[in-house]
Amino acid sequence: MSRSLESMLVCPAPLAHADIVELAHGGGGKKTAKLVETLFAPAFRNPHLEPLGDGAIVTVGRERLAFTTDSFVVKPAFFPGGDIGSLAVHGTVNDLAMCGAEPLFLSAGYLLEEGFPMRDLERVVASMAAACSRTGVLLVTGDTKVVDRGKGDGIYINTSGIGRVRDGVSVGPAHAEAGDVVIVSGPIGDHGIAVMAAREGIDLETALVSDSAPVIGPVRALLDAVPATHVLRDPTRGGLATALCEIALSSKVGIGLEEADVPVREEVRGACELLGFDPLYVACEGRFLAIVPGPSVAKALAAIRSQPGGEGARAVGSVRAEDAGRVVLRTQIGSHRLLERLSGEQLPRIC
Amino acid sequence: MSRSLESMLVCPAPLAHADIVELAHGGGGKKTAKLVETLFAPAFRNPHLEPLGDGAIVTVGRERLAFTTDSFVVKPAFFPGGDIGSLAVHGTVNDLAMCGAEPLFLSAGYLLEEGFPMRDLERVVASMAAACSRTGVLLVTGDTKVVDRGKGDGIYINTSGIGRVRDGVSVGPAHAEAGDVVIVSGPIGDHGIAVMAAREGIDLETALVSDSAPVIGPVRALLDAVPATHVLRDPTRGGLATALCEIALSSKVGIGLEEADVPVREEVRGACELLGFDPLYVACEGRFLAIVPGPSVAKALAAIRSQPGGEGARAVGSVRAEDAGRVVLRTQIGSHRLLERLSGEQLPRIC
Repeated sequence: MSRSLESMLVCPAPLAHADIVELAHGGGGKKTAKLVETLFAPAFRNPHLEPLGDGAIVTVGRERLAFTTDSFVVKPAFFPGGDIGSLAVHGTVNDLAMCGAEPLFLSAGYLLEEGFPMRDLERVVASMAAACSRTGVLLVTGDTKVVDRGKGDGIYINTSGIGRVRDGVSVGPAHAEAGDVVIVSGPIGDHGIAVMAAREGIDLETALVSDSAPVIGPVRALLDAVPATHVLRDPTRGGLATALCEIALSSKVGIGLEEADVPVREEVRGACELLGFDPLYVACEGRFLAIVPGPSVAKALAAIRSQPGGEGARAVGSVRAEDAGRVVLRTQIGSHRLLERLSGEQLPRIC
Repeated sequence: MSRSLESMLVCPAPLAHADIVELAHGGGGKKTAKLVETLFAPAFRNPHLEPLGDGAIVTVGRERLAFTTDSFVVKPAFFPGGDIGSLAVHGTVNDLAMCGAEPLFLSAGYLLEEGFPMRDLERVVASMAAACSRTGVLLVTGDTKVVDRGKGDGIYINTSGIGRVRDGVSVGPAHAEAGDVVIVSGPIGDHGIAVMAAREGIDLETALVSDSAPVIGPVRALLDAVPATHVLRDPTRGGLATALCEIALSSKVGIGLEEADVPVREEVRGACELLGFDPLYVACEGRFLAIVPGPSVAKALAAIRSQPGGEGARAVGSVRAEDAGRVVLRTQIGSHRLLERLSGEQLPRIC
């Protein structure tokens, strides 16, 4: 009996693909959205649940709060420009900022694998503490679990966060309107490419580092200048394209994106060409996109550019009534391409 | 060259025990406390951080909130009396209740291993939704990450929660006073033994099931009857003994515990004797301990016993000024034994 035939007979019948969790279910694209829409959202249906936003807006007594959670499984845990600790702080602080909230308090849930070097844990914790201090949030509660060797991958971190929604601000993925303009706060894709290169040992022959950073400074300036901002979103998993597709679907509008205007660093573009990635789908961890009323674009751009991390802000597209639910890219050569949400898993475990 | 000598030469020198994360660092006992006290607390020092409480009390605008986080890695994910989904809801709801708060909102962070059966995920989600509904909390935001095969163990879940602290209530591990009485809401150790038996395939020849349940009903009744309750605590990892040791240390009081009064089911006692465990260190997930002023004991017991899940409440000990920082057990035969916090890892991955 051949070895492969034998193992077919001995092993139970493998589950069909649709019956098991795949990496793509965590990729932030179509499969993640399907899981949310068909499993999580129906199970937990309630008026606050915002399936595809960056967090929920809830009311406690007289206060309007933003509440968000994110688990971080980035591999490797230390990468050029950051590590899992600062990333876990920035990620949740940025999700709160994307709700139009001032980030206030964080929790940290450490999931450690037995054998993880204590000195690496110390580095991660120091990095988290420095990120909290830079961002002005307080980490107030935590939890540590340890799993046996081979049941984890060194360190995973969950951070959840509470923020206070700014008075007079109401942003959400369903708030884009025809006539609005789409702004991106800086070059896209640095984080995904930097992590991927570090993981695969690819020498980019450049000093490309992750963009992992808090975006709260530029967001504050924007909301001070343009409180009527309609949408804020950080293009993490699934990148700019997936974020825009979800907004187009939620807001029932069309979005036109100008490829020539989207800021992408030369080294990111080069790495993407080499590896067959599309920068529009590569994650950022220190950028955001804002959708603002057309007449406020100049004011919005000036405000974002006035703050560290926002210097590279650009208007990249516009919102229209036609093509509802769709994102259309006008390429550099003038052709048009329909963008879809990320399909499959382009870059697993980048956050 | 012998195989073992060869591998010794090829492998890097193993790190010393003090230099790596051990299972006991997640056990909720001495090693967890040391990690919190020497690493996390100094790094994140701020007035809200309550290193050994069940959650933090923070103020947002005019509201006093409880905020807590917990990761669940229980093995197996499905066990007699519950599963990781309902456990993750009960655990965080109970932590909020232990802060004297009304639980309001939960987040869920799913950490899935590639290949996890979708039907098991569906069962877990349905169980979480049912637990939320029974408890009256709303799950409002979530996150899903998938890690590659061999880097997880099917499913881990983080839940974080927000509650509103009841007016006039101020409980905390440092609030116990001489003259107070210690109450336990029901028999201890069911959860730890039920999970351990399921995992190890031990037939207990009984129908022992986990006590996993929300404690919010009995806690509400207690706080209505005795708003001046000093301490609330759920004896999860590390069990009743470790919880009392931490309270004795935080409150700088001595605690006397009467072994004869501590409720332990026969089947739990039997399994512990067989396996060499001490029920005082075995986790509960649906019990709490309350420390109340001496004159309020009868009222407190009546209130707790009036609610489902609190019928088995008992006064088990008393707080005194002498023996500050220590917990002394008076055994059934009348001898005295000093209880210490859990040392090492008695039952890994029970929550």
